[in-house]
Amino acid sequence: MTTAAGRVLAVLSAFGPRHRSLSLSDIARRAGLTLPTAHRLAGELVSWGGLERDPAGRYSVGLRLLELAALAPRGLQLREAAFPFLDDLHSLTRGNVHLAVRDGREVVYVETLRARAAATNSRVGDRWPMHATGTGLVLLAHAEPAFQAEVLRSPLERFTRYTITEPGELRRQLAFIRQSGVAVARGTITPDDLVVAAPVRDPSGRVAAAISVVVQVAGARPRELARLLTATSRSLSQQLAGGPARVMASSGARQAGWAAPAACASDR
Amino acid sequence: MTTAAGRVLAVLSAFGPRHRSLSLSDIARRAGLTLPTAHRLAGELVSWGGLERDPAGRYSVGLRLLELAALAPRGLQLREAAFPFLDDLHSLTRGNVHLAVRDGREVVYVETLRARAAATNSRVGDRWPMHATGTGLVLLAHAEPAFQAEVLRSPLERFTRYTITEPGELRRQLAFIRQSGVAVARGTITPDDLVVAAPVRDPSGRVAAAISVVVQVAGARPRELARLLTATSRSLSQQLAGGPARVMASSGARQAGWAAPAACASDR
Repeated sequence: MTTAAGRVLAVLSAFGPRHRSLSLSDIARRAGLTLPTAHRLAGELVSWGGLERDPAGRYSVGLRLLELAALAPRGLQLREAAFPFLDDLHSLTRGNVHLAVRDGREVVYVETLRARAAATNSRVGDRWPMHATGTGLVLLAHAEPAFQAEVLRSPLERFTRYTITEPGELRRQLAFIRQSGVAVARGTITPDDLVVAAPVRDPSGRVAAAISVVVQVAGARPRELARLLTATSRSLSQQLAGGPARVMASSGARQAGWAAPAACASDR
Repeated sequence: MTTAAGRVLAVLSAFGPRHRSLSLSDIARRAGLTLPTAHRLAGELVSWGGLERDPAGRYSVGLRLLELAALAPRGLQLREAAFPFLDDLHSLTRGNVHLAVRDGREVVYVETLRARAAATNSRVGDRWPMHATGTGLVLLAHAEPAFQAEVLRSPLERFTRYTITEPGELRRQLAFIRQSGVAVARGTITPDDLVVAAPVRDPSGRVAAAISVVVQVAGARPRELARLLTATSRSLSQQLAGGPARVMASSGARQAGWAAPAACASDR
């Protein structure tokens, strides 16, 4: 990007998961700017609050961007409404819990509640290809046909021997997910993980997000998890539609005949 | 701000808690830009991902800013490390749990776990004056003397009849918080709330953040809460210093002789 606006955004884009703290010359190099320009723009971003400067003079992302992110309807705002449901799923299943939305051909995690002993280490803001994640499969299954076709035509990266990379098989999977209302997949990214995911609908009834629970395959109870996720996603969708006072995952758990120590979560 | 960079940031600054969805003319008016300029900049921000456009053509904050916010050392990155501790506090106390950092003369909430039946409705990204919040009092108590003096000289807004607005009384409170290691305050923002807050130290030992629990005054157990917060803040600070494997709030609860159903949290 070569416009003035583009140069500011290039400075912000210089930061990433493996580039959380950058020197001025790092920024200039990664943003493709001269040192004086990088210095001027970084300075403006610091005084605005979008960047912070540590005592050593290195730059990192500032709190102003957290405040803005909190306003994203598909970001922290959605997360606010969903949190109690995710929190219950977390304490009921002891698994990794994800709330994700679609962005381009990827899913972005809007919330992640990590299990104490988690193999995967997912973070808010993480991006994954749709075909390789439970939430992505759900969002893809409910996406418009043209978009599905586009993804099915695109290269499908393989992460483990369980990742679905054959278009025909993926198409069958998506049909099954639409029909069953839930995605159950094993080890698409981490071999020993089992993910169960379900759609979250906006007030218009459109699938706007997906929730998932990731547990270890050993000792997992896919059927019970599927019922729990289904009940929770229904309650959360009702909540987003301004429906009845929150129906918690814990009550969903009772509907689903969930056997885990729901007592803890249900009275929270 | 009149520079090109400033105009881009002004477009982003047009969004706020009461302005989550803006038309192009809203943006132009709030950013002090001509309609064509607002249109061009909003367009660049949409293609970058910092803004999203809904079917009705209104603009809102986009996921790209959530991804960036996730990189903020004092934002979602700190929150990642703190979450398990906050989650335990949440389930142990059934209260509102906050993680906050100082920004200028205010505190910004980096994480909020809301109680089911919460009077207050705090959100990530919320800002409050330091003297009126438990986390703010803790951060102010451990701030450099020059900064404390500056805050004590500034007007101290009154939210309830319990808010400390008299500099001398506030100075005594801060000394007591430094000495006791924990802040206990009643109804500084909401009359029927009790807040207990404690400092979180970075690896250098500096107080970098604060955690708090807000419960209803009726039936609250300030002493036990103070012991629980103290134990939790110590464990979290050790964790940030790369210390021993996580000591959870739940075990802190045992140290603190916490009577609540710790069984739920401790085995999570």
